[in-house]
Formats: sequence, structure tokens, C-alpha cells
Amino acid sequence: MVRTAENRLAAAGFQLPPGVTPFGTYVPAVRTGNLLFLTGMLPTVGHEPQFLGRIGKELDTEEGGKAAYAAALNALAVARQYLGSLDKISRVVRLGVYIAAADGVNQPKIADGASDLLRDIFGDEKMSSRLVFGVASLPLGVPVELEIIFEVSE
Amino acid sequence: MVRTAENRLAAAGFQLPPGVTPFGTYVPAVRTGNLLFLTGMLPTVGHEPQFLGRIGKELDTEEGGKAAYAAALNALAVARQYLGSLDKISRVVRLGVYIAAADGVNQPKIADGASDLLRDIFGDEKMSSRLVFGVASLPLGVPVELEIIFEVSE
Amino acid sequence: MVRTAENRLAAAGFQLPPGVTPFGTYVPAVRTGNLLFLTGMLPTVGHEPQFLGRIGKELDTEEGGKAAYAAALNALAVARQYLGSLDKISRVVRLGVYIAAADGVNQPKIADGASDLLRDIFGDEKMSSRLVFGVASLPLGVPVELEIIFEVSE
Repeated sequence: MVRTAENRLAAAGFQLPPGVTPFGTYVPAVRTGNLLFLTGMLPTVGHEPQFLGRIGKELDTEEGGKAAYAAALNALAVARQYLGSLDKISRVVRLGVYIAAADGVNQPKIADGASDLLRDIFGDEKMSSRLVFGVASLPLGVPVELEIIFEVSE
Repeated sequence: MVRTAENRLAAAGFQLPPGVTPFGTYVPAVRTGNLLFLTGMLPTVGHEPQFLGRIGKELDTEEGGKAAYAAALNALAVARQYLGSLDKISRVVRLGVYIAAADGVNQPKIADGASDLLRDIFGDEKMSSRLVFGVASLPLGVPVELEIIFEVSE
Repeated sequence: MVRTAENRLAAAGFQLPPGVTPFGTYVPAVRTGNLLFLTGMLPTVGHEPQFLGRIGKELDTEEGGKAAYAAALNALAVARQYLGSLDKISRVVRLGVYIAAADGVNQPKIADGASDLLRDIFGDEKMSSRLVFGVASLPLGVPVELEIIFEVSE
């Protein structure tokens, strides 16, 4: 079996969450040329946060990684909804991981919660560039937000 | 009358502010292919901030929305200055709204101050993806900064 | 002598640092079409931070500018490693400067530490758009992180 993103997802038994519905005047994804820009992805189900708080305070690093993972699943759901199939994604161009974290938290480790999932689904050869920093606060009080730009090839 | 961006702007009686002049070694906008990247837009007139302070502290949510709106007007001014006409904009690809906010502030509501204006001018079908988070501080002490990428079609 | 980026670099006697090795599941640069997205660049040598602390607290504005400069040198090293030559860069599209700063710090001045270097190497006509804000914290505890998108032309 060819190791496409959709095959890897099915083989891993992943259930993608339902699509994301906006909190305001915007859309979940915009395509321009071969680039697909996703709206900031949060660890939510519907409009309900799955994780709340600051890493290094209410949450630990492991929970931070899980929050990043949950937000990345939402990103996959949005991309599949928009494109029809994740197999149209030829590259993860940019992954931004913005973390509500106390000082001294291992930010790369939290970010890997999202990066590892994307690598497992899309493969080593489609690995992203990455931008990680600690923010003052995030919408809804969640601990992690992801910025993702995919390259699409059809 | 065709509902183009320039017609909507004129019909609404908007006066765009004068262009933006840099605070350092950069330019207000860069075009690459069909994408127009704007410099971070602030709620300023010339080099003077129109809003100062942190939302949830010195400013309330409503003032935050007005600051986002003022920054979005600057973005329109820069885009028109660069392109000659806003009608060359075929899509708002990305809107980033970075907010100097205390914890618990309704960030999406503030961001809508910019998003609503862009939707009113460019129409529903050109709505952007969006990225919103709270930052520690912004240049000049303003409460909001916008990141905008437009798609241009000629 | 034609004033290309590589010639300017050689004439200035710059020694670029060695390439950057990832801290996690990502790569230092991704090219899509004519755009080269760099991973967030830090003022590090290898995995060791050259500057530590917050500007306006442990570090002053001048040191902040030097940290931005050091991170920009890493960006040049990564771009040359990826492209073979900096002369393939036709434009600096976006420079993001994210600063761990106390309130009231002159953020544009710190950002110019990176912008001035890029202008000196690539020339006035390739100057970037720019996005600057203060973040809560950065990976490794460094004071500055850079986001860079180059336009490549071959």
C-alpha cells in the first residue's frame, strides 16, 4: 500500500474531529495559488476548549504537548474538509506554535506534540519550517495555538 | 453599480488615512508573485499612536475593537498606495491580530474590529483566515497590531 | 565589481556561522515556489544561546540589537546552505522580529539590528516588510527570534 497521508491516517486508526466553526468574521482556510493558509488552530472541540490554562502553571509540559496534538488534529480536519483529501498536500511549509507558557518551559518539546503528528501523517520529506514562541494569552484561555501553511499540489 | 472595494469605500464615505512611514529599516509593503505582504499595521496617524495601553487595563474591549479598526484603515491606505486601487485585491489571505491584552479579554471580539471592516469593503467571498493572540507588548505601546497578506490579481 | 549579496558579504569580511540544527521535528528551511520560509532564527551558536534574558531587564536595547544581528547571521547561513548562494535571493519579503522585552523598550531599534544587516547585504531595493512585537518568552530563554521569508529567483 502506498504510504499516503490518508493511508497513514487510516492505518493509525485516527478519527479526525469535526470541522472548525469560526468565532468571528473569518473562514477556517484560504487557498492562494498552491498555498493553503489555515486560521489559528486551537485545542477545541466545536467551540469548547479541551485544555485550559498556562503551561508551567495550571498545565505541565506533557499536557502542553497533548494540546498541540489536539490542535494539529483540528488542522488536519480543516485541511481535509477544504481539499477533500490530505493526499493533495505536498508539503507542510510553516508550522507556528504559539504557547501560553510560564518562563523556563521547554517550548520545543511542546511544539513537537504537533510536529510529530504532522511528520507521522505526511512523512519525513514533508517536514515543516517552524516558529515557536511564548505568548501572553490565547483566545478562550487555551494553552497552544497553531499557525499552518500547507503547499497543495494537484 | 458594481460592488467593488473602491465603490464600497466611496459609498460608505470612508476617508483613508495618509500612508504609513516606516519607523526603521523596512518598507510598508512587499509584493511577491500575487501576494502582497504588509508591514505590521498599528493604530497610528503618522508616527503618533491613536490608542495607548493594554486592553483589560487602560482600555476596554470596545476601544480595542476601535484600535483594530484604525489599524485596518491604515492597511487599506498602504495597499491602495502600493497597488493604485483596492480593486486589484482578489482575496484577504491572512489577517493576524496581535493584542496587548490582560488575561480573560475577549480577543475574537477585538479582532472583529478589523475583520468586519475588511469584510464590509471586500465582501464575504474574500474573507481571510485569521490568527489571534495576546502579546506581551507592542511598538509605541499601542494595544493592537495587524499582519495582513493580500492576494492581488491583475 | 557587481554589488551582489555574496560580494557585499565578502567585502565586509563577514564569517557566517555554521548552519543551524533543529531542536525538534522540523527543518531549518522550506521552499515552496519562489518563497523560502526559514524556521525561527535565534541568536545561537549550535544549540548554545549567545544572549540570554529579557531586554529592559537582564539586557539593554543595544544588546537586543546585537542579538537580532546574531540571529540574522544565522538566517543568512541557513539560506546560503539551502540555496548554495545568497545571490539567488531576489527579495526579503517578510522579517518578523519577536522580542522578549519589558514594557517601554524601543522595539523598532532592536529590530533594526536585523534589518540593517539585511539591507547592508541585499541592498535598499530588497528591503522587507516587517512585523515586530514583544512576546512572553522565547525558546532557550533568548531575547529575540526572527521569522524570515525570502523570495528566490533563478
